[in-house]
Amino acid sequence: MADIVTAAMVVIGDEILSGRTKDKNIGHLADMMTASGIDLREVRIVADDEDEIVAAVNAVRARYDYVFTTGGIGPTHDDITADSISKAFGVPCEYEPRAYAMLEANYASRGLEFSAARKRMARTPRGADLIENPVSVAPGFRIGNVHVMAGVPSIFQAMLDNVMPTLRTGAKLLSTTVQCPYGEGTIGGPLGDIQKAHPDTIIGSYPKYLDGTFWTELVVRSRSQEAMDSARIAIEAMLADIAKAA
Amino acid sequence: MADIVTAAMVVIGDEILSGRTKDKNIGHLADMMTASGIDLREVRIVADDEDEIVAAVNAVRARYDYVFTTGGIGPTHDDITADSISKAFGVPCEYEPRAYAMLEANYASRGLEFSAARKRMARTPRGADLIENPVSVAPGFRIGNVHVMAGVPSIFQAMLDNVMPTLRTGAKLLSTTVQCPYGEGTIGGPLGDIQKAHPDTIIGSYPKYLDGTFWTELVVRSRSQEAMDSARIAIEAMLADIAKAA
Repeated sequence: MADIVTAAMVVIGDEILSGRTKDKNIGHLADMMTASGIDLREVRIVADDEDEIVAAVNAVRARYDYVFTTGGIGPTHDDITADSISKAFGVPCEYEPRAYAMLEANYASRGLEFSAARKRMARTPRGADLIENPVSVAPGFRIGNVHVMAGVPSIFQAMLDNVMPTLRTGAKLLSTTVQCPYGEGTIGGPLGDIQKAHPDTIIGSYPKYLDGTFWTELVVRSRSQEAMDSARIAIEAMLADIAKAA
Repeated sequence: MADIVTAAMVVIGDEILSGRTKDKNIGHLADMMTASGIDLREVRIVADDEDEIVAAVNAVRARYDYVFTTGGIGPTHDDITADSISKAFGVPCEYEPRAYAMLEANYASRGLEFSAARKRMARTPRGADLIENPVSVAPGFRIGNVHVMAGVPSIFQAMLDNVMPTLRTGAKLLSTTVQCPYGEGTIGGPLGDIQKAHPDTIIGSYPKYLDGTFWTELVVRSRSQEAMDSARIAIEAMLADIAKAA
């Protein structure tokens, strides 16, 4: 049996829930997880509210191998992620010496004051490891199985690149796509039979609607090349049968 | 005190979690809610798995005034939303006569078989009301405070347009944006003081990073025009002070 590694994401941000900012990080994390053989099983978007963050993080960190959060790690009053994660783990939130030194040196080199607000970005839950930020210095951090990263997409992506090599990855989920010229109504019955006959695959059907025409993308996913190929062949045979009958 | 109306969203779809499809519905719902004075408080993205859907829907429908789901209402084997919502409400999932008649007439007019797979799209939890689908006939439905809609964005949007007039809307959340030429580190301290002094507002700080420069969008939200204007004036005064000191 292939090793299964699971993950969840918690997006922290009033600005996503208000619609003001359109999230770009969920899709990126999903792509990275799939490419690495890690199953992203759940995403929650929560408000900038300590109780909500604590509840969401504690719910998912108990269930999945890895948790990734984005947002709320800047220097302003609405950046409460480090405090919230500390509370979730029941540890104090305090200055992390290496983060403090990195930020202090960075602001000094730019002739800027290392203000109380900026010092906030050096705070992590006690016992956390830093996640380096090659874009703008202020680090993310990891505590337990929870990886806390920035919400700005370019910074999130750079932090995630640093995290990926540290993760245990599962057997990669293979996938193959069959373009189906028919709508779901045409294929729904036989496709369900194919799914039943190929239990080691997950067959997804994604309806597309364009200019008044329905078509469908059929995606076969499996951790076994053989199982995937077998289901694909069955789908292609089904499509050939439908074409013959038409 | 202005009336507060809250909402949550449950996105149902393996294809979003795998990264294969990038969600466009969260941002649209968020925009529509904000425009109508409804607070979108939480979003969950869950897999095509009955237990996960039931757990997520039951968790959020108890907490918020409205719940909106997207995805999983088509004719294929992986479309399990109607069954899952029925289970969440403890009612049978059965053919809804009006949905059945609409679909039957539609397929007849197109000379297509009203197959078992297509008939699946006429199933709703007992007691549900239909949400009409002007794009492709197969309806969504509402049961209790849960609105079940399609995942294809054009269809979701059309269904949501039909739902919006039925919702109780809250006092609209007003917002005003101040473009701030400084990074969050510069404004973090005084901005926190302004937030404390203006408790009837929610002041959000959204860091932007472009071509090596940080700047910030400051958004003041309030249900009171007066409170919002007052906070905005304080922010503009803060920025003028920083400019003077520079």
